[in-house]
Amino acid sequence: MVLKGLTERELRAWRTSFEMLELLRTRIEQQLQASSGLSNADYTVLALLSEAPDRRMRVFELARGAGWEKSRMHHQLTRMGKRGLVIRERCGSRGMEAVITADGLAALRKAAPSHAQEVRRLFVDRLTPEELDQFAGLSATILDSLRADSSPG
Amino acid sequence: MVLKGLTERELRAWRTSFEMLELLRTRIEQQLQASSGLSNADYTVLALLSEAPDRRMRVFELARGAGWEKSRMHHQLTRMGKRGLVIRERCGSRGMEAVITADGLAALRKAAPSHAQEVRRLFVDRLTPEELDQFAGLSATILDSLRADSSPG
Repeated sequence: MVLKGLTERELRAWRTSFEMLELLRTRIEQQLQASSGLSNADYTVLALLSEAPDRRMRVFELARGAGWEKSRMHHQLTRMGKRGLVIRERCGSRGMEAVITADGLAALRKAAPSHAQEVRRLFVDRLTPEELDQFAGLSATILDSLRADSSPG
Repeated sequence: MVLKGLTERELRAWRTSFEMLELLRTRIEQQLQASSGLSNADYTVLALLSEAPDRRMRVFELARGAGWEKSRMHHQLTRMGKRGLVIRERCGSRGMEAVITADGLAALRKAAPSHAQEVRRLFVDRLTPEELDQFAGLSATILDSLRADSSPG
């Protein structure tokens, strides 16, 4: 079935890219789960919070940094809160903030080295340095325009 | 926190690429859900089955085509089965097959045109034709090596 509105070439480009992204996510998560019990989503939240000033971020900004909808981030924070990895705190008129706990920071530090190795093995080392720069540059172009685009949802 | 084992440049390339992918998936799914009630996962399964001979595939091959683990595909097929979009059938010694139903095909056909428009708007049209070919080519390189790699999980 050809998607109306896309040429064969465009459809192939989209499918190859989307399938690669799905498989890469799957593989990265397999290693993360096996070595640390963390999902890709857990890791993303912990990494973003660990690098923020005072290790806390507004939920709105955290969702933006992860590329998720705010409702998805709230669900994720609820699950991580139950496991003691993060807490949420109300911050006056500024809404909710998420804060990484000592346990969350420890989990991140334990997971990071083997996660980095897997990112290198499955992604970084599959391309030449020039190709990696190209891929990141094109990703940045798409990311910038996605961010500039007001969400239809 | 710098991931040990990755240089700053490599880490930036990974994060930009991963964040773009997360945001792109989110946006594409928002439009799909709003217009048709289908998730990205639903759409992927329906599209793969609709193009297969006799509109059926072994669950193993379907999972491979989607870039997922087999267990994830079984969970997905259970949910889609409850909604009448697919059925699963045992096929002798060849294991389980998934088949798209008439309702599944109708749902796919209804969703396809606006989905294609959104893929064009958010991805295809953000790059020049040359950049799109570049991106797809690099994605294919990574995809091929991911497939050749035996899963650690």
